[in-house]
Amino acid sequence: MTFTTGLSALPEVEPLDQSLRGELQHIIDTKTKPPGSLGQLETLARQMGLIQRSTRPAVERPVLIVFAGDHGIAAEGVSPYPQAVTAQMVANFLAGGAAVNAFSRVADIELEVVNAGIATPLPRTDGLVDISVAAGTRNFAHEPAMTHDEALTAMQAGAARVRHHAALGSNVIGFGEMGIANTSAAACLMSRLCGVPIDECVGRGTGLDDAGLAKKRAVLAAALAHHDACHAAFDVLATFGGFEIAMMAGAYLAAAHARMTIVVDGFIASSALLVADAIAPHVREYCVFAHASDEAGHRRMLAHFGAKPLLSLDMRLGEGTGAALAVPLLRAACAFINEMASFESAGVANREA
Amino acid sequence: MTFTTGLSALPEVEPLDQSLRGELQHIIDTKTKPPGSLGQLETLARQMGLIQRSTRPAVERPVLIVFAGDHGIAAEGVSPYPQAVTAQMVANFLAGGAAVNAFSRVADIELEVVNAGIATPLPRTDGLVDISVAAGTRNFAHEPAMTHDEALTAMQAGAARVRHHAALGSNVIGFGEMGIANTSAAACLMSRLCGVPIDECVGRGTGLDDAGLAKKRAVLAAALAHHDACHAAFDVLATFGGFEIAMMAGAYLAAAHARMTIVVDGFIASSALLVADAIAPHVREYCVFAHASDEAGHRRMLAHFGAKPLLSLDMRLGEGTGAALAVPLLRAACAFINEMASFESAGVANREA
Repeated sequence: MTFTTGLSALPEVEPLDQSLRGELQHIIDTKTKPPGSLGQLETLARQMGLIQRSTRPAVERPVLIVFAGDHGIAAEGVSPYPQAVTAQMVANFLAGGAAVNAFSRVADIELEVVNAGIATPLPRTDGLVDISVAAGTRNFAHEPAMTHDEALTAMQAGAARVRHHAALGSNVIGFGEMGIANTSAAACLMSRLCGVPIDECVGRGTGLDDAGLAKKRAVLAAALAHHDACHAAFDVLATFGGFEIAMMAGAYLAAAHARMTIVVDGFIASSALLVADAIAPHVREYCVFAHASDEAGHRRMLAHFGAKPLLSLDMRLGEGTGAALAVPLLRAACAFINEMASFESAGVANREA
Repeated sequence: MTFTTGLSALPEVEPLDQSLRGELQHIIDTKTKPPGSLGQLETLARQMGLIQRSTRPAVERPVLIVFAGDHGIAAEGVSPYPQAVTAQMVANFLAGGAAVNAFSRVADIELEVVNAGIATPLPRTDGLVDISVAAGTRNFAHEPAMTHDEALTAMQAGAARVRHHAALGSNVIGFGEMGIANTSAAACLMSRLCGVPIDECVGRGTGLDDAGLAKKRAVLAAALAHHDACHAAFDVLATFGGFEIAMMAGAYLAAAHARMTIVVDGFIASSALLVADAIAPHVREYCVFAHASDEAGHRRMLAHFGAKPLLSLDMRLGEGTGAALAVPLLRAACAFINEMASFESAGVANREA
């Protein structure tokens, strides 16, 4: 399979249909409030209306898919947690005990957990979507993390999970991740795809100390130098990415193709969007940026997308936790555009012209 | 009634009980997540635990009280909307058509609408709590907006509404407002109580143009000069405040007294908190700051309280809309502290020490 043939099998993304923009803006501007006074919620309501091609946008069966995978680069000691934690946390997700479980429950969000490629054998458990590509990626300090076939298989598998939920009626979707060492993969994706020096892309991840941070920077700088000929987005994904990141990249494409509103989580989730966005630049028009992560580099990544995040709560957990917290704001945006009276209907005097 | 006697009748506020701080922090730190990775939600969960004197804080029957009142200063042309809009918007609240209705419904928040002192006669309507002190305040360009008796009556009435909801089981409460020209009142409160030049406190309110903004600044600067001897918080409230602002100030005291978590809305709501905070400085320990309003001056007011707001969505509507949007974040904070597994209970390896 050639590179080009492979990518042509991925979901296509059309530009966001702008035909309702004027009508949506008029509806928003005649609500009983000073013009513009609902700030980012007005932008959000308009964007959701455009995505759904409706003047009455709604949040239907919101779903969060958490993709989990392991990374060969973990062998270089770039995380303070052992690799086994990826599988242990997946068991925790399935038992309902992680942060993303708590946030999804309280916001009434469907949660799906996917084994994208975990190194540690998992007990057979109800509720896990097991579409593992391999038992962890290779160590990109020495060789590409994935073959092109593996990366494409992962992207298509991620896309298939989105189509499953679209068929069940979901029109709002977010993607979370779990994978020890995946901030290292994301930092390399960011450095190569945004053209930013690696030191500005590397953060403390789950909590490295100063020595650990210095080591992580050195390891990743060497790895980038080792693969210095790799620049095309799909090749960058295969070289530095992970199975969970590749599934997320494919999932973004499928979600935009299905005209879903995509709630983008933090640093890792945004690194996967860099790949999807490089392949199909219109994908970002379907994206709502949930939060600015506290992980170094995420704000710069948001600037790359021209994005203004909804939340900024100093969080740096991943799992899709930021996306889960943003869903109530999407519901609020839909509530105001659907339920508020207009100046005329409420008999409220508008401002003196 | 002397000034001192009057204030002594207001609810007392005790310092926040810190005895559970260590235990709460330990619970938060042993959850299955990197330490500190839930950012402001960790602070929020701990604060709610301290307020409720519980390691299992909860959001119970959250309520938003919207206080509406008119302002004599409106006669000076400081707002682009006519004064009649205050009463019209109250009718809109009661019919369920305003932004705060939509946001409260979607977040499952009880909403109460109070006539604190509206100038325009209101039709008798079910659902309105009519405890009007007078038909609007006097014009503080020329004379104090309220007598001390009126201001104290309003504070006590606001406190009584809070006690009503505390008795019904609410442990989370927010206050919103409606009142044409009340950003002018709030700007004067801020200038006098924070010692900030009036020009830095005055914003466009509901949408003044440049000429309107210049006029508003001139009117308020002259009013402050006219009342240059007035500096004590209660006197400042009576001189420049409004019935809705005074009710909010009393409501803050009663809510802190009842150990409720107080969700502070935007510019006007924060100006009322300035008064409550000057009378009983521990009140801020019970406060969660919902959002940074786009109204000029609000960020500086937040800095005065040492507050980091939860949301920053470029909103400037009032009504309690920011407070309503923050309630799901309080629920999320409670959900994680109550529902997440610990490293030990989930069998997840903690970081290498």
